[in-house]
Order: sequence, then C-alpha cells, then structure tokens
Amino acid sequence: MPISLEEQPFKKLSAIGEFGFISRIASASRQGAGVITGIGDDAAVTVPSPGMQLLTSTDMLLEDVHFRHAWHDPYRLGRKSLAVNISDIAAMGGIPRWATLSLAIPADLSLDFLDNFTRGFLSMAAEHGVSLIGGDTCASRNGLAVSVTIIGEQFPDLILRRSGAFPDDEIWVTGTLGDAALGLKLMENGFDSTQPPESSLTKIEGREYLVSRLLDPTPRRSAGLALAESGLVTAMIDISDGLLADFGHIAEQSGVGGVIRLADLPLSSQFRSLAPSLSIDSSILALSGGEDYELCYTAPKANHEIIVAFMKKCGIEAASVGIVTNLPGVKGVNGDGSPCDVQIQGFNHFI
Amino acid sequence: MPISLEEQPFKKLSAIGEFGFISRIASASRQGAGVITGIGDDAAVTVPSPGMQLLTSTDMLLEDVHFRHAWHDPYRLGRKSLAVNISDIAAMGGIPRWATLSLAIPADLSLDFLDNFTRGFLSMAAEHGVSLIGGDTCASRNGLAVSVTIIGEQFPDLILRRSGAFPDDEIWVTGTLGDAALGLKLMENGFDSTQPPESSLTKIEGREYLVSRLLDPTPRRSAGLALAESGLVTAMIDISDGLLADFGHIAEQSGVGGVIRLADLPLSSQFRSLAPSLSIDSSILALSGGEDYELCYTAPKANHEIIVAFMKKCGIEAASVGIVTNLPGVKGVNGDGSPCDVQIQGFNHFI
Repeated sequence: MPISLEEQPFKKLSAIGEFGFISRIASASRQGAGVITGIGDDAAVTVPSPGMQLLTSTDMLLEDVHFRHAWHDPYRLGRKSLAVNISDIAAMGGIPRWATLSLAIPADLSLDFLDNFTRGFLSMAAEHGVSLIGGDTCASRNGLAVSVTIIGEQFPDLILRRSGAFPDDEIWVTGTLGDAALGLKLMENGFDSTQPPESSLTKIEGREYLVSRLLDPTPRRSAGLALAESGLVTAMIDISDGLLADFGHIAEQSGVGGVIRLADLPLSSQFRSLAPSLSIDSSILALSGGEDYELCYTAPKANHEIIVAFMKKCGIEAASVGIVTNLPGVKGVNGDGSPCDVQIQGFNHFI
Repeated sequence: MPISLEEQPFKKLSAIGEFGFISRIASASRQGAGVITGIGDDAAVTVPSPGMQLLTSTDMLLEDVHFRHAWHDPYRLGRKSLAVNISDIAAMGGIPRWATLSLAIPADLSLDFLDNFTRGFLSMAAEHGVSLIGGDTCASRNGLAVSVTIIGEQFPDLILRRSGAFPDDEIWVTGTLGDAALGLKLMENGFDSTQPPESSLTKIEGREYLVSRLLDPTPRRSAGLALAESGLVTAMIDISDGLLADFGHIAEQSGVGGVIRLADLPLSSQFRSLAPSLSIDSSILALSGGEDYELCYTAPKANHEIIVAFMKKCGIEAASVGIVTNLPGVKGVNGDGSPCDVQIQGFNHFI
C-alpha cells in the first residue's frame, strides 16, 4: 500500500534539518500494535505481549559495500533494509513487532531519495505488521549508512534456534535458491531492466524476476511462524550467506554435520532458463549464493510426509535437500552420489 | 572492572575474520539478567519483566562527525557509545537492560583498537547492568561507524516523558552544565593531557576533568530511576544538545514555555576556574553547550523543599534553574532579571 508523505517543496535535507526530517518520517509512520509512544521522545515505549520472550536483531547496510546507488533504487533499498531484519525474526519463528532506523546521510543526498527510501521502508513495515518506533539521523561525510534494529516476540516453547538439529534430521529449504546470486551476476553483466528487450519477453521477465529477488527480497515471516507453530522443526536459520554457509551455522551450533544433495536444490524456472547463458555452474550458485532470504530448517525424517502435507496446506513451497549427519562438516553430493568439491566459504568482509 | 579479552596474536581484523571477531566479543560479554540466548543466533532471546513496558532508543556515532581518532581513545569511545544510549533510558526513568552494537570497520583499523573499544563498551555495560546481546560487523570503506540500540524497561506509571510539564513547574537539572562543551574548547585549543603541566597541577587536573566529561560521560541512570520512583517529576529529558535546546523539547511537547535563570546554572569548580582563560561567556556555554548527559526535569513548585531533601537523601546534585511558563518559547534571564539574548539553536547536522 502506498505510504503518504506530505508534498515537500525542498530538495535538500539541509533545508528542513534533522528535526524536520524526523518529523516527516514520524507523521508518515503509523502507530501499530503495542506502541504507546513512538518517534519523538528519548526512547520509544512499547508493550510486550504477556508470556512472550523478545527477539532482537540488527543489520547495517553501507553504500558501496552492501548496495550501490547505480543498482539500488531508494524505494527498494528502504524495503530491503527492513526485510533482512524481518528475515532474522522469521528465522527464529518469531513475530516482528518494532523497528528503529538510523541513517548517516551524505550532504548531497536529495530529499527525494530519502522520501522514497522512507516510503519503501514503511511499505515493508506495513506488509509485516512492524511499527517504526525510533531512530537516529546524522550527517555522513562518507556515503549513506543504514542501521536497523528489529524487536520481535514469540512464546518460549515456539522459538527456533540454530542449535537444535539432530543426526538423521532432514534438511529443508523454503522457496528457490540462487535467484538473488544470479540476479547479482546479471547486474554485474550490465543488465538494465529499463532497456528494450534483446531477446524474448520471457527472458526479460526472467531477468527482472531474478534482479528483484536481489533488490527486493521477501522475508519468509509467515513460513517461519507456521513452522514454529507446527512443532515439527528442530532448528532454523535464514539463508543470507548461501545454503552451505548458513546450514554450516546450524551444523556448528548443533554439533552435527550434513550432506546436501545438489540435484534436489529447488531452482526457479527463471534461474533454470538464464543460468546457462552466463556459463555459471547452477548448483554452485544455488549452494553458495547469498541473499535469497529463504529459510533452512531441520526436522525428523519420520515426519517427512507430515511436513510435505503441512507446507502444502500453508501454501509454502518447501524442498528436502539433505540429511543431518553425526560427522562434523557439511558437504554437497552430486546426483550420482559423488562428492561435490564446493568448500564452505563464509564471506570474510575484512580481507 | 577490567573486561578480559583473550590475548590475540593478530594485528588485523582480516586475520580472524568477521566471525572470529564476533566470537571474541561474545566470549568477553557476560550473559546478564533476562538473557536466554545472547550473541550467535539469528536474533537474541530475552525475557521482559512482568508488568513493565519496553523502552527502546538508538544512537549512531561516526568518525569525523561525532569523534576523531586524534582525540578519542578507543576505550573511552567504546564507553561513550553505550553511555549516550543508557542516558536516553535514564531520561525516561527506565532501567537499561540489553544492547546491540553494530560496527562498520575500516580495513586498516587495528585489532588492538577494536579490543580496547570492546573493553570500554563492556565496562560501561557492566557498570549499568546492561547485557550486550547482538550486533553486526561489516567492512567500511569510509571510516568507523558505530550504531548502538538499547532496550530498557519500566512500569508504565513510572515512565517519564517530555510531554508532562505544566506552567509554574520548576525546571531542575542534575550535576553541572557546560563541562563537556568547555572540554571540547580545550581540545580544540590543543590541550593534550599527556603533556607536562604549563601551570599549576590544579589547572591540569581541571582540564583533564573537563575533557573526561566530554570523552567519558556518566549516564545518570541512578538519578533517572530515583526521580521516576519518587513520583515528584512531571517531565524529563537528558541534556545532549544543551539545556536551552533540550528543555526546548520539553516545552514544545508539553505545549509550554520557560524562563531559565543564568545565575542559577550549576557550574563545576573546574569550569569556573578555566572558562575565563578561554575568553568564553560561561553562561552561554552552560546554557547551550551539549554532551553533558545530565538530566533536565520539571516538577511542581510546591514540592521544592521535598525535592531538595529527596535529592540530598539520594546523594544526587540537583539545582532549580528556572520556571515553566504559559507562553511558548524558552528564554534566559540574567541575574538582574534582564533578558539574555541567547537564541534556541538546535544543532542542524545537515547545513
């Protein structure tokens, strides 16, 4: 739904100042469930739900590290800034409630950019029942920086952690994998959705789909919540760094290992259609590509059919892609059972 | 109390990577009250106290905007990053509980710097009963950025807001004003506490005191809590932008105005001793200088003696500095009752 911000005659933030900008955001954000005092005091006041525990997560997005102005339009950047945080709450099986938004803003950034960013952020908030309750804005000498903290809730018995997987559990994933990573490759290869089609409309639509998976990911809030309430799941995580790395966190914290069957990785039709044109190994991309924000979870093998039926009833795509093992380490196997030589490679920002 | 971090043989963050650094912080941070799952899962899990509401606040500190490496040693920078957030919870009369810490880290920043920053942050956390429950780290191409979010709690009836001041309430402040602003002037004039004394020891100690008020502020948690529990206070705010600007927020949100008596502003002996040497108008600095992180609160005039006695009992310095008025606007008056021409000037980061 469109978020309304008042028409503004100014182009630069300096014209309205920090308090003017905060006041614009405050008047556009709706006070949601449990919010007693939102933006505008020293701290926001909210009411936790009786019997629930709090889930808190935070993510920072930096210009030229996590996003580029050439690729990321402000509306979708605003949406993604909150989406990645909602995804963390979903991965715990929680209900996202309240968020804070801090922005370090370069002097030359237009008020129009900030308004569109804010509209995007608030549209994602509205879609998932999240209230923006506070934040901070300051001048940046060095590019835009976005820092979001989210607070969610859930009953203690329903919260899912990385540490609950058992040997012989099945490894499941929601949706499809590798789309965002292929979207990134398309962007790197100069894909511009505003250009006229070079080939068939289907291929253009496919590219737009894959790029939108990267730029405007959908956090799996409903799926995470349904899985938590099902009581069927032993461990869960969201896939931000790629299945191999993220299941690796489950394995490490559960004291187990895992084998992932490459042939069973769920791929979108758009991915299948466009990956070959870039001479990319599809399995590697689906196994190691980040930013899909799907959920990876484990559950006892004996409940396979129950899970299939449950996910179908919920209308959530899910695929069994491997098995938890006693032995430490996570490896991929090809369709014929031969080992795949992909190594788990956590992304080291600091090299 | 000293926070122990394991000895590390590396000098650069790239040697241990993001997960190595997070693991260092996680092992040094103590799990405090109400923390079920701290650092290391998709979200932290904490237990809110029955009957209390949540207080959430966030602040961002940027290199060369809020701090400079030449002035700010990493230990005190870590302390201050959390202190300014604790101060926001104190200003609501709340109990600070849990914090997240996000860092955008330049590639050339030493692990030694980060360790000292972390020690400082955790020492402030330990002093105020705060648990570090999560965060984010990423590589910065453009200087260090620190983003902290804090969650506190308080019973609904005890929470103090900016909006509760009434005409004829007295305006009170804790501690002394202008120290941090004078400390900044001293730094700008080249004061270096490591240099041998030019004049008397008292003056050097005075300078160190004023500079430490800027670099290592003490959040008034106990005072804020005592004032909330006293039931004597109608509105409260912390003084981060200067008394005139911050009382201005109380005035605006309460729909009132105020008169502040310059002659009654509480000044430290160090301030009185050193302000004249810099040819600075002491009153202006005390009225408009930011970063003292004292509390400003309002209370019915009829309770003046009760408040004096209560603050004395609590061991908290407090001074009555003015009166809330019906008329909008905040002005200062000199000792002889003549108006002072200081204008309220909110700090506009974006000019």
